[in-house]
Amino acid sequence: MAIRRKQDFPVHQVRRYLEPGPIVLVSSAWKGETNIMTMGWHSVMEFSPSLIGCVIAGGNHSFELIRKSKQCVINLPTVEMLDTVVDIGNCSGADTDKFARFSLTAQPAEQVDAPLIGECHANFECRLADGKLIGKYNYFIFEVVKAHVARSPKHPKTVHYMGDGQFMVAGEVISRRARFRPGML
Amino acid sequence: MAIRRKQDFPVHQVRRYLEPGPIVLVSSAWKGETNIMTMGWHSVMEFSPSLIGCVIAGGNHSFELIRKSKQCVINLPTVEMLDTVVDIGNCSGADTDKFARFSLTAQPAEQVDAPLIGECHANFECRLADGKLIGKYNYFIFEVVKAHVARSPKHPKTVHYMGDGQFMVAGEVISRRARFRPGML
Repeated sequence: MAIRRKQDFPVHQVRRYLEPGPIVLVSSAWKGETNIMTMGWHSVMEFSPSLIGCVIAGGNHSFELIRKSKQCVINLPTVEMLDTVVDIGNCSGADTDKFARFSLTAQPAEQVDAPLIGECHANFECRLADGKLIGKYNYFIFEVVKAHVARSPKHPKTVHYMGDGQFMVAGEVISRRARFRPGML
Repeated sequence: MAIRRKQDFPVHQVRRYLEPGPIVLVSSAWKGETNIMTMGWHSVMEFSPSLIGCVIAGGNHSFELIRKSKQCVINLPTVEMLDTVVDIGNCSGADTDKFARFSLTAQPAEQVDAPLIGECHANFECRLADGKLIGKYNYFIFEVVKAHVARSPKHPKTVHYMGDGQFMVAGEVISRRARFRPGML
């Protein structure tokens, strides 16, 4: 897999990539250790500040890295990376350096200490905005503070998890822009 | 659009339909009034109890109906309903009976007073499980208490909103079941 060259992207527009509901890879760092986990339970919560809510189960090795560092990067993989996405979810950062094992490139982020995954289509640098629901629901509310997106393709083939080992691959993109009332886009 | 015949579906498996991130239609009822809104900001939060978190902006007419009744139904439309989905988001329940205007069939639910939308592929009856984040984030945590899913097609063509009037239509479904470590599905 090749490293994708990225450009800056407005943080208040990350819904473009996250609202359709793709599986993402969450990278984290704490005291010299890094990790990657797969995540499917996330949603946009606000445009500005750019808030993303997500569940990170306590059993994940990443849970403590993210809880303690109060940071992560949400990375957007595409279908060419699907086997890697599955394999990342199959092993634990407790005994595996996932960047090394899966030959992924850790690139420095700008606003956080967690690394970007170079091979992903997009990288969203996040800081914990509200941790009040971590205890009860493992629910983290992050603010996206910096976004990087590859110039092409325009419509990346993201993968969307359905459970039971099945993934839906992003299909045709159609516009209904002309049908929307202004202000409702 | 035809009414879809449904069968009962296990509530702890609703991720099958919601985790891929489709646009949904939320129906509600309060004191004899019903309404429908489109929603894209939702995610699975737990299998059992079956929890779904979602943002319902305060400007929506549905907000007060759902907040007061503490109930709603999350309905899953498919691409044949896309124009209706857009049009539902373009008008307000304050001055429109959306079931009548869009010729949608309100069917009685089993566990809640909000109606099912008969033409949708699936209907998930929800009761408010936690309203603590409504004030700060318009964030509702629902428990799915009853699920109804059409027998076919197996893979409904859901639509996934990207903002700016653009929708991604659900594409190919591929399995990596054999690649998963048992227990990680």
